[in-house]
Amino acid sequence: MEKWRAADRLLKFSSRFASAVNWNNSCKSKQGKYFYSVATTVHRNPLFSIISPDDISYFKTLLGERGVVQDALALDAANTDWMGKYRGSSKLLLQPKNTEEVSQILKYCNSRCLAVVPQGGNTGLVGGSVPVFDEVIINVGLMRNILSFDKVIVSGVLVCEAGCILENLISFLDDEGFIMPLDLGAKGSCQIGGNVSTNAGGLRLLRYGSLHGSVLGLEAVLANGTVLDMLGTLRKDNTGYDLKHLFIGSEGSLGIVTKVSILTPPKLSSVNIAFLACEDYTSCQKLLLEAKKKLGGILSAFEFLDSDAMSLVSSTTFLGTENHGQEVIKDKHGQDFTSIDLRALPLEFWYSYASGSIFMENLEAFLLHSVESGLVANGVLAQDINQASSFWHIREGLPEALMKAGAVYKYDLSLPLEKMYDLVEEMRVQIGPAAKVVAYGHLGDGNLHLNISAPAYDDNILAKIEPFVYEWTSKNRGSISAEHGLGLMKAAKIHYSKSPETVQVMASIKKLLDPNGILNPYKVLPSSLLSQN
Amino acid sequence: MEKWRAADRLLKFSSRFASAVNWNNSCKSKQGKYFYSVATTVHRNPLFSIISPDDISYFKTLLGERGVVQDALALDAANTDWMGKYRGSSKLLLQPKNTEEVSQILKYCNSRCLAVVPQGGNTGLVGGSVPVFDEVIINVGLMRNILSFDKVIVSGVLVCEAGCILENLISFLDDEGFIMPLDLGAKGSCQIGGNVSTNAGGLRLLRYGSLHGSVLGLEAVLANGTVLDMLGTLRKDNTGYDLKHLFIGSEGSLGIVTKVSILTPPKLSSVNIAFLACEDYTSCQKLLLEAKKKLGGILSAFEFLDSDAMSLVSSTTFLGTENHGQEVIKDKHGQDFTSIDLRALPLEFWYSYASGSIFMENLEAFLLHSVESGLVANGVLAQDINQASSFWHIREGLPEALMKAGAVYKYDLSLPLEKMYDLVEEMRVQIGPAAKVVAYGHLGDGNLHLNISAPAYDDNILAKIEPFVYEWTSKNRGSISAEHGLGLMKAAKIHYSKSPETVQVMASIKKLLDPNGILNPYKVLPSSLLSQN
Ligand SMILES: Cc1cc2nc3c(=O)[nH]c(=O)nc-3n(C[C@H](O)[C@H](O)[C@H](O)COP(=O)(O)OP(=O)(O)OC[C@H]3O[C@@H](n4cnc5c(N)ncnc54)[C@H](O)[C@@H]3O)c2cc1C
Ligand SMILES: Cc1cc2nc3c(=O)[nH]c(=O)nc-3n(C[C@H](O)[C@H](O)[C@H](O)COP(=O)(O)OP(=O)(O)OC[C@H]3O[C@@H](n4cnc5c(N)ncnc54)[C@H](O)[C@@H]3O)c2cc1C
Repeated sequence: MEKWRAADRLLKFSSRFASAVNWNNSCKSKQGKYFYSVATTVHRNPLFSIISPDDISYFKTLLGERGVVQDALALDAANTDWMGKYRGSSKLLLQPKNTEEVSQILKYCNSRCLAVVPQGGNTGLVGGSVPVFDEVIINVGLMRNILSFDKVIVSGVLVCEAGCILENLISFLDDEGFIMPLDLGAKGSCQIGGNVSTNAGGLRLLRYGSLHGSVLGLEAVLANGTVLDMLGTLRKDNTGYDLKHLFIGSEGSLGIVTKVSILTPPKLSSVNIAFLACEDYTSCQKLLLEAKKKLGGILSAFEFLDSDAMSLVSSTTFLGTENHGQEVIKDKHGQDFTSIDLRALPLEFWYSYASGSIFMENLEAFLLHSVESGLVANGVLAQDINQASSFWHIREGLPEALMKAGAVYKYDLSLPLEKMYDLVEEMRVQIGPAAKVVAYGHLGDGNLHLNISAPAYDDNILAKIEPFVYEWTSKNRGSISAEHGLGLMKAAKIHYSKSPETVQVMASIKKLLDPNGILNPYKVLPSSLLSQN
Repeated sequence: MEKWRAADRLLKFSSRFASAVNWNNSCKSKQGKYFYSVATTVHRNPLFSIISPDDISYFKTLLGERGVVQDALALDAANTDWMGKYRGSSKLLLQPKNTEEVSQILKYCNSRCLAVVPQGGNTGLVGGSVPVFDEVIINVGLMRNILSFDKVIVSGVLVCEAGCILENLISFLDDEGFIMPLDLGAKGSCQIGGNVSTNAGGLRLLRYGSLHGSVLGLEAVLANGTVLDMLGTLRKDNTGYDLKHLFIGSEGSLGIVTKVSILTPPKLSSVNIAFLACEDYTSCQKLLLEAKKKLGGILSAFEFLDSDAMSLVSSTTFLGTENHGQEVIKDKHGQDFTSIDLRALPLEFWYSYASGSIFMENLEAFLLHSVESGLVANGVLAQDINQASSFWHIREGLPEALMKAGAVYKYDLSLPLEKMYDLVEEMRVQIGPAAKVVAYGHLGDGNLHLNISAPAYDDNILAKIEPFVYEWTSKNRGSISAEHGLGLMKAAKIHYSKSPETVQVMASIKKLLDPNGILNPYKVLPSSLLSQN
């Protein structure tokens, strides 16, 4: 671990030099947002070819004009990540229409040694979905067919192409009486292939578990164009190694996911959600334990946001503020659904609770008891679907609210529950008044989203955050990426969470499946390991 | 697929010649039980060394006398599988006490090219846990410590050594107010390391999902002695490829599992179980669908057994029979808990249903409705814990009852629910009166245990079963191994369920992690693929 710490340096990245070896350790980036830090200098791999007119002709013949995007505006969007923090300079975006085309593209790129970056909805938060230099962008967004849905036998097995937008799948299932086992704020843009490739967690993991449990099968295309048909729809299949798990969470570095088969649970007959305020983090944590004990299997989410997160979200367009010592929470349509005395409460959190209506009594009894015992200081139970979605809107609006507030350093950590908020408090001390530390996350899963919000990106702030945050997490046996993945941001930081032997095996698997390293280079694993022989 | 089908041959295996190339295609085995079929001839790999006195000395120095077992009786047990169907001729059983010893053993065996077979409780049903020839048996049964259990934060994360017996873990958790997410008939003998290595399914998968979802971390030792510390205890950790999944279900062919970290759900405040009889399979299937719809998340198991299974189990010591046109079901202590007119019912099945007591009303309403609508012809709801365990006893006693009835050909299939029983019926026609076809299984997971019970093993019977059963399953897009794995029995049959490209990648991963192929040779993958370069 020492060696990575020693190598830690602040680097800025300006898009103007993107296709050259343009990493500069000292000069300050002009564009504050095109900024990031990596643990070690990244150079363009000189073994990769540069796109030629012949390549373009080949792709046009293969995909037709529509499948070959060279338009500047479209490329600019595809080169820039959701946060505006990472930016590549790819000259080519390919849009295959089926698995065969993906296979042909990769076969060709592999033989030509053209590096590629698979891109889904481009909502990833670790710089994994955009090129670092001039990699060819491959987006399966045109592959958005639902191939089958098995509701007759109540198995809820959905088979679809990888380019389906998560929200579209959610609506489709809603009509069928089912839900997706995952849900997240980026649902309107992210693709199921991207979700699988990042092993996205989200708001329902507490109840429905991770994608390693609910994905039943995949189709993926390897770097050399080989199509791996692992698209089983069976709940149980113990015939050989379960290879699909290698692709779940491999962030496009082992193959392009083209089809997904996923187990979807039936829709709940009713969903109840409460938004509660606790005096401090300890009460919040105790409340989670009580809820787990008392509500058990019917608890479907337990999210939290602290008071800094709450003020942030209420000062944005999402929520209106009225100044009577009380904050009136409104949703974006201006609907005023309740008022909670936010100022009196050092911490707010909310939790959602899903169940059949027969359990409403149980929930009410639980809440009453929690108020009586002092765990809950204040709170509100959604009275209808509109209120419920307003509650969700607050939580789901946080990443966007942070974006609007300026520069944001995002850390996505798994930590032992009892230690989680200590980090937030230590970080506040560490950073001082220069930036705001905003915490929220999937408390029920032990997942903290730690955000440091500043007016602009600033090396001095970053130097106070890293490696402190990684060292703290590692020391407390946490994970430096709970759900967002490593991408470019944390490729060289993997040793904070994984043993050297394990990382070494990962690197050999990468080399086995992608010997030329064309798939999403510079991401996930330290480049130093991949260039070793 | 054609090539495997063409290569299908019946082989018998006599233990007397076990260390020689002793596969004989034509002579009938004298010992009916030491019999099995593989798809292709298996030869001892001549590259493997033969154990020498020096090897023994090395192991004695490393492990002490207790760790090196050469006693004939103990070796005989360890050489023979649970069914008495597979038998090896190993001369050495090693019992390491910790990971470091496992690592030293493997490092040594790898350098000497000594083949090994990891063995747990030896309850596997596909010949995977016993040597084929003279492989060294490694059993981690002395590594049976519970390392930690995190109940304070209601996460229910259990970390233990791989040699822990499943039943001991179940009792330990019971005292703590938690349960294991898996349970199976062999719990008194099987080890958690064996469960993980076979990706065991069992009786609770319907509710708690597969081990790919609930195992949070593993420690495993590779063929060259490298210890892979993947023993995370976090619910979420997206830092690199999730390698533990390679070991879950790899049947000891990629590494020896030494530690397991597993998420355990809290104990349910009450568990209700009903034993119901349906007129036919169609009603049985419909009932499952209704139960899934109406009982949703609280349904924890839905098992089924057909009338042949029911007669078998009631004719063994498990259950007494009284002849008044009614069969009185007794448990093994002679407790008579109910009477069901079995004869009037072409099919019986039972299902278990776990919930908090508040749901009892719901269950009763559901059962009443099912009787009224004709789906359920008869049934009984357990009145107390003794009755409940008697019901489970019937189901869990089936494998043993079959063993007592003579020779048994076991097939463990995943099939589309609506087709599942067609196979049973076609098999009955196919086999005729020579053998009895007995069906039971985890209906809720689409998992059929198809058993062909005959007085003795007989080539003519086998020829009627295979490849018919595999072809039928493959044609219906099922899995030829839902939960038992491939072992030796189905190593060469993998193509019935997996595509050639996928199998090829499995073989390259095997070669990557175990270049000398010392770990559980002849199992899981077709030998032909592993010897290729
Ligand atoms: C507002 C907001 C809220 C979010 N909330 C959550 C949350 O609650 N939980 C959570 O886990 N994440 C969350 N995220 C981040 C999350 O990773 C993404 O939202 C999502 O899973 C990525 O999907 P995508 O299609 O946008 O993939 P992209 O961002 O395009 O790509 C992500 C990674 O996957 C790879 N990839 C994409 N598609 C494929 C494919 N078909 N085959 C192979 N590789 C591919 C890319 O190369 C890249 O490495 C959030 C993001 C935002 C902006
Ligand atoms: C009565 C009965 C009921 C059963 N019911 C079910 C059921 O409901 N569901 C189900 O899935 N299975 C069932 N099984 C079979 C099931 O595979 C085993 O019961 C169990 O999972 C195997 O555990 P074991 O410790 O006995 O492993 P073994 O039988 O000793 O070994 C099984 C395989 O795992 C490997 N292995 C064992 N330990 C390790 C280790 N530490 N590291 C690496 N590899 C190892 C072996 O090499 C072998 O390939 C049943 C078996 C019986 C006899």
